Amino acid sequence: MRGPARSAEVIGILGGMGPAATADFYAKLVATTPGSSDQDHLRTVIWSDPTIPDRTEALLGDGPDPTPWLLDGSRVLREAGATVIAIPCNTAHAFVPRIAGHAGLPIVHMIGEVARHLTVRRPGIHTVGLLATTGTVRAGLYQEWLDRFGIRLVLPDGDSQDRDVMTAVRAVKAGARDGTASEPLARAARRLTDRGAQAVIAGCTEIPLGLPADAVDVPLVDPSLILAQALVRLATNRSTTG
Amino acid sequence: MRGPARSAEVIGILGGMGPAATADFYAKLVATTPGSSDQDHLRTVIWSDPTIPDRTEALLGDGPDPTPWLLDGSRVLREAGATVIAIPCNTAHAFVPRIAGHAGLPIVHMIGEVARHLTVRRPGIHTVGLLATTGTVRAGLYQEWLDRFGIRLVLPDGDSQDRDVMTAVRAVKAGARDGTASEPLARAARRLTDRGAQAVIAGCTEIPLGLPADAVDVPLVDPSLILAQALVRLATNRSTTG
Repeated sequence: MRGPARSAEVIGILGGMGPAATADFYAKLVATTPGSSDQDHLRTVIWSDPTIPDRTEALLGDGPDPTPWLLDGSRVLREAGATVIAIPCNTAHAFVPRIAGHAGLPIVHMIGEVARHLTVRRPGIHTVGLLATTGTVRAGLYQEWLDRFGIRLVLPDGDSQDRDVMTAVRAVKAGARDGTASEPLARAARRLTDRGAQAVIAGCTEIPLGLPADAVDVPLVDPSLILAQALVRLATNRSTTG
Repeated sequence: MRGPARSAEVIGILGGMGPAATADFYAKLVATTPGSSDQDHLRTVIWSDPTIPDRTEALLGDGPDPTPWLLDGSRVLREAGATVIAIPCNTAHAFVPRIAGHAGLPIVHMIGEVARHLTVRRPGIHTVGLLATTGTVRAGLYQEWLDRFGIRLVLPDGDSQDRDVMTAVRAVKAGARDGTASEPLARAARRLTDRGAQAVIAGCTEIPLGLPADAVDVPLVDPSLILAQALVRLATNRSTTG
């Protein structure tokens, strides 16, 4: 594979939601980039502001709107020379329509990339389960994109969503890396596969940090890895054609 | 431990040397920061420019001077709102005297922090070994700081430096995570402990990625972890006193 060596692209990462997920996403971007020396890698600027108000709380009507923070972060990235923005937080994508017109840069849409990936790379999959924050679920982010591509979405019931998924996401955000999160997440995933899910989307960037892929019987789809791959593709295409 | 919650500090990371080491450093900074939610973490801006010319080549007289790239990255960080700069690359510290006066921000000196850490936290250690790039060794970076604190430094002989250490560093930069790097690094570390080293400094940010701590019989000192701890201490002190 030809790499993005000396690409004109500067990847802007609007991060901090949460910070561990941002570090994990950048590690995936580096690991996904082909190359044999430092100089083959992409220039990247990361604005990681963990003080951005909680996205799920805002979507449930309980907290301040994070939009001003997201706009401010986009400005920092643009002024630093970024040519494209990636947001490694699923829930924050609920606010993308509010910032897209003001960011001054294209935003590579993580959830749109997941829908495209499933269609192109896994055409046999017609039903997928979703493990995500209550904010992402309520905002219908995956529903909207998967509908467009004709893929059926299976969601946890309310009890599993609150007790298993959100508890695990909060445990990862609090630093748990000891399996505290993996049991409830694996249980929630099993309930989705019992209901026909042929793959499960780890639809919150904290989830791959808490749930090992082998704890799930079906493919576990990692949106942050798919976003990293989309960025490398973009940089490679532009550097070879432009 | 009281955390740096809502610190006024914005950590600026001048990275990309290499990019995997930068991702690893940011993950360590996040893991080191006390807190139970996203909002307890430090605002951070990372400029990761892997196209910066190789530091070792410049120090050996074979490559372009990376100073202009480092100055440019410092400017990006300052304009993005950083209040302090950290450079998670040992070899790049050879160029710190050239950028310190122009960066417009304090630089937390990783190698100085390692010398301080050894003196304060490990007062029984009087002789340490160093695994680092040939650039770091030739520039005498650790020699200078450890001399000041009265610690004796043991270096690999020329053959071990070239054949084991540099080969391993290049393997990690090329993406090796499969043990290719750990054998030569463990061999080089053993030669240092045979010559009296009571601890070994993993003095290139790629080395902790290639050498597991348990492959060495004495404590393996990780400068990037010590730098992360110094930043958290700085942010915590300033937020509680200022």
